[in-house]
Amino acid sequence: MWYSSSRSSVRSGEMAKLTQLIDNEVFRAYATYATIVLLKMMLMSLITAYFRITRKAFVNPEDTASFGKGESAKKYLRTDADVERVRRGHLNDLENIVPFLGIGLLYALSGSDLSTALLHFRIFVGARITHTLAYLIPLPQPARGLSWVVGYAVTISMAYKVLKTALYL
Amino acid sequence: MWYSSSRSSVRSGEMAKLTQLIDNEVFRAYATYATIVLLKMMLMSLITAYFRITRKAFVNPEDTASFGKGESAKKYLRTDADVERVRRGHLNDLENIVPFLGIGLLYALSGSDLSTALLHFRIFVGARITHTLAYLIPLPQPARGLSWVVGYAVTISMAYKVLKTALYL
Amino acid sequence: MWYSSSRSSVRSGEMAKLTQLIDNEVFRAYATYATIVLLKMMLMSLITAYFRITRKAFVNPEDTASFGKGESAKKYLRTDADVERVRRGHLNDLENIVPFLGIGLLYALSGSDLSTALLHFRIFVGARITHTLAYLIPLPQPARGLSWVVGYAVTISMAYKVLKTALYL
Repeated sequence: MWYSSSRSSVRSGEMAKLTQLIDNEVFRAYATYATIVLLKMMLMSLITAYFRITRKAFVNPEDTASFGKGESAKKYLRTDADVERVRRGHLNDLENIVPFLGIGLLYALSGSDLSTALLHFRIFVGARITHTLAYLIPLPQPARGLSWVVGYAVTISMAYKVLKTALYL
Repeated sequence: MWYSSSRSSVRSGEMAKLTQLIDNEVFRAYATYATIVLLKMMLMSLITAYFRITRKAFVNPEDTASFGKGESAKKYLRTDADVERVRRGHLNDLENIVPFLGIGLLYALSGSDLSTALLHFRIFVGARITHTLAYLIPLPQPARGLSWVVGYAVTISMAYKVLKTALYL
Repeated sequence: MWYSSSRSSVRSGEMAKLTQLIDNEVFRAYATYATIVLLKMMLMSLITAYFRITRKAFVNPEDTASFGKGESAKKYLRTDADVERVRRGHLNDLENIVPFLGIGLLYALSGSDLSTALLHFRIFVGARITHTLAYLIPLPQPARGLSWVVGYAVTISMAYKVLKTALYL
């Protein structure tokens, strides 16, 4: 039987084999959507930097050194409404994408069928992209609130499946 | 030998098999406790929303539109001590649960025995629930400080095991 | 064929075997560098606590109770430039290390070769350590900006590899 082979054989076999987790279709779907939503989150850093530079609104004294010394640079150490808005969107991403990453990974390993998994991943990522647009444009409420609820509900649904499959207290 | 089978056979076999990571008991324990602590963290969003609505303390102008226009709505754009307290608890969760998720996953794959793993996971999740209660009630110090230290120490203990098992610099 | 064995046999075999993901060298490298960079991030909590205590700058009333009651304790409820600086560094860690954890894990399972993977992991961790030093000392710009860009670019490079290998929309 394969699993009675000596440890060293198993080892060398493992190395080739376990990296192929990525061959599982549900796992590939997770990898794709998790990467997309993380790239979207990373985009928030660039948008923050863009607004900090165009609005000249910085928080660290060393960041304004190129504007000269003393009072002339100090006036750029200020908060700006647009910068703060992007930062709130970024923090909201962290609060919601971290649960998706963790629970989604476990969900992808819980043996759910491909179409159900794709439905979860697509709705979550769509909801988070909508949330960002609703935050940055900004769209009138309840656009942002609803997109937040949808992403939240998808994560709860995956958590339910994980606990139903894996529960070991 | 099984690992000498052609790549395509291994592939189709893999797909059925690798989703069964969830059959490993230590991994199932990780899945359970990671999901529970993430759900607890997600609860912070609901508590923040609850306090924002009951205290009428918002940060985005579009969130107060239902209270009317102009000055009558503007007065609800303010910070509230309870809202800020929940938000600090939420950020502290992020700072501590993200390391747990990452290090805990690697720890669950490091071949530790079930009872030791369960001990780590249970203490961490218990400490974080205590931390949240200590923050929100609030309990006098050192309740919050101690619960933070316990969760931190459990994570360090798991990190030590991961590095001892996996170290590859 | 091994994968035609009965489910129960596969199960018991799986349990022993799948925990050995940690035997894969690229995965071990990921485990090592992910753990190191998470420990670095966790250090930010200790540095924050150190500055809060030495600068006597707290945010929760219950944290200043040991300084007495009333006005004598209230004056320690204040922000401090050094505390805020560490907190910004900590939040920047969260914003950048969360994508690394997620995308890096998927990258480690995407079958990249060991030397390329090590290059990515080492540069990322080096960049984040440099970023922290640049933030806390602080170093003049563009030290912090450049170290941030390097970590960001490494994550994008891994994301590209993950999407190229796993794309399943």
